[in-house]
Amino acid sequence: MSLLEETISAICPADNAAREKARQHILNLTMPRWALGRLLDLAVDLAGMTGNFPFETSRKRIVLMAGDHGIVKEGVCPQPSSVTVQMVRNFVRGGGSINALAAGVGAEVTVADFGMIQPVPDLVEKGTVLDCRVAGGTRDFMNGPAMSNDQAVQSLENGIRLARKFAPETDIFGSGEMGIGNTTPSTAILAVLGNVRDIASIVGPGAGLPENRLGHKAEVIARGIACNRPDPVDGLDILSKVGGFEIGGIAGLILGAASLRKPVVVDGYISSAGALIASVLKPESRDYMILAHGSAEPGYRLMEELLHRKPLLDLGMRLGEGSGAAIAMPLLDAARAIVTKVATFTSAGVTSEGIKKTRQG
Amino acid sequence: MSLLEETISAICPADNAAREKARQHILNLTMPRWALGRLLDLAVDLAGMTGNFPFETSRKRIVLMAGDHGIVKEGVCPQPSSVTVQMVRNFVRGGGSINALAAGVGAEVTVADFGMIQPVPDLVEKGTVLDCRVAGGTRDFMNGPAMSNDQAVQSLENGIRLARKFAPETDIFGSGEMGIGNTTPSTAILAVLGNVRDIASIVGPGAGLPENRLGHKAEVIARGIACNRPDPVDGLDILSKVGGFEIGGIAGLILGAASLRKPVVVDGYISSAGALIASVLKPESRDYMILAHGSAEPGYRLMEELLHRKPLLDLGMRLGEGSGAAIAMPLLDAARAIVTKVATFTSAGVTSEGIKKTRQG
Repeated sequence: MSLLEETISAICPADNAAREKARQHILNLTMPRWALGRLLDLAVDLAGMTGNFPFETSRKRIVLMAGDHGIVKEGVCPQPSSVTVQMVRNFVRGGGSINALAAGVGAEVTVADFGMIQPVPDLVEKGTVLDCRVAGGTRDFMNGPAMSNDQAVQSLENGIRLARKFAPETDIFGSGEMGIGNTTPSTAILAVLGNVRDIASIVGPGAGLPENRLGHKAEVIARGIACNRPDPVDGLDILSKVGGFEIGGIAGLILGAASLRKPVVVDGYISSAGALIASVLKPESRDYMILAHGSAEPGYRLMEELLHRKPLLDLGMRLGEGSGAAIAMPLLDAARAIVTKVATFTSAGVTSEGIKKTRQG
Repeated sequence: MSLLEETISAICPADNAAREKARQHILNLTMPRWALGRLLDLAVDLAGMTGNFPFETSRKRIVLMAGDHGIVKEGVCPQPSSVTVQMVRNFVRGGGSINALAAGVGAEVTVADFGMIQPVPDLVEKGTVLDCRVAGGTRDFMNGPAMSNDQAVQSLENGIRLARKFAPETDIFGSGEMGIGNTTPSTAILAVLGNVRDIASIVGPGAGLPENRLGHKAEVIARGIACNRPDPVDGLDILSKVGGFEIGGIAGLILGAASLRKPVVVDGYISSAGALIASVLKPESRDYMILAHGSAEPGYRLMEELLHRKPLLDLGMRLGEGSGAAIAMPLLDAARAIVTKVATFTSAGVTSEGIKKTRQG
């Protein structure tokens, strides 16, 4: 059995006994019934994911996967592909937004090359970038698949390996990515899985495509899908035909983490495209996903629907890098603090009159 | 000139030069134009509030003001008033949600008695509760004002004094409250200021009023307003007729903080009612308000409109205590981290091609 098959078969649904234990504990805390809303839902979810109550959240790691995209040739993106490697060097020096945000929430950042056009042997040598390279960028998927089936498997398995490598020292994973042009494959994946006819309705500017070029971007995606005919029930087929290496890496990270009962905070648009691939390969992997931040891209709402999840935050961000995952992470600590530190009605000598009534009513 | 008048006249609008300095700096950071959305808006706002760029966010303090409400007699609330003091004792022991959440984000919690039915002389003696008592609970406002004009001034000035006391050691204030029944005066304040005819449309369950009692709550509010006829352009009149001592305290805290150019993270529904009073007394005080968390109460949307602000978070919380302010505070640190730590295009050697184009386009 391949690493991918083994991982997929190891993924179990969330632990309902741990969820119920969390729920019962929360109902006795000194507050009106479920008065902290989604923070309490999150606590229950984290118990179910980890199988533990209370669960741990302190050791956080954002895995930032970089890759380039042949589709950039089609003029779907204002920046040149060279920005991908420039930004990776910026991350390694600590100058990216993700560095600033992750440091603020106590998260480690791991940078991995999943297939940039320009490799970074010096950084791989120093150990500041992990070598998960599949190839030097995907192919332009206008005239054929973005990658071979083997390459798709490789990108997924490299993501799984990262999850396995870091799981012993990580309570909470976060996904992040850098890849000029990657809203285009992400939107293509969404279009296939959502069976979207009017591609223009889900196409957005990504990192700043002018509005008068959005129609062209939609056309490129529509042609890529028409030419490649990805099978909407086959995650591997979709990934290879219209995906990207870092998107496969994100899907692999999620599958690997899920197989080890580790929660993954899924960043934004690109990460959610990876999450969609993971959910097609194994629907139960959704039980381990926490959507961090709603993307400003118009397709994001449909991603939420397909993942049956709602993001924790919605601050009009559209950067990627794992920035949304980073700023959502304190909410997981908050969920843990509530279930580990708040007094119960009995311990605090607070009357639950009115609260109990509500519970039954 | 009274402390209140002096404070009101000392409040200046946000500093536009500092805002512009922040904006220009942000436009050179290594990211697509304004790609961190509201996190960047927040950085600009914080510069304008403090008049400094960069600004500080590290020293945080949530001021939790407690008070009781005569209107509870009318059956608008499932819990008895005795829960207010029980919860205050719980906070002092560190057992409340606010204690757990504030500790997690590095915020101090200051508890102040603005007028609970039952005083806490032992805790005041120990210094764990600050004495800002106006009276032992407000009067039932069904048949007359909740408090005298003098008491309204006193609650505001006690809030101002707290802002002055802690300002030298505080970068960011947060508001919090505890007061059984206080969604009722808060909704009454909103109804007056929003000129709401159909009170039922803005009435919610607060801490758990059963749905079949909501009509009664709306009727109590409508009668209280009809009997007292608060003047919608006179913040002091509204506060005294249908307000509460801790609501006056919150308004005072905001006015005091604004006069000293300190940002206030405004918690949820009750705190926003206090913010409404502050904004009537001095519209420029809005420049110093950061709405933390959207309340699940149906009236909250109208509060947002009247305050011309949008909350940072919306997680279905309806607890108060300052819980929303606490979980929003890491976003202020994130805003600071972005403007102090992220590299510029020039310093990082990242091409701004495509980005600059967008800037001009």
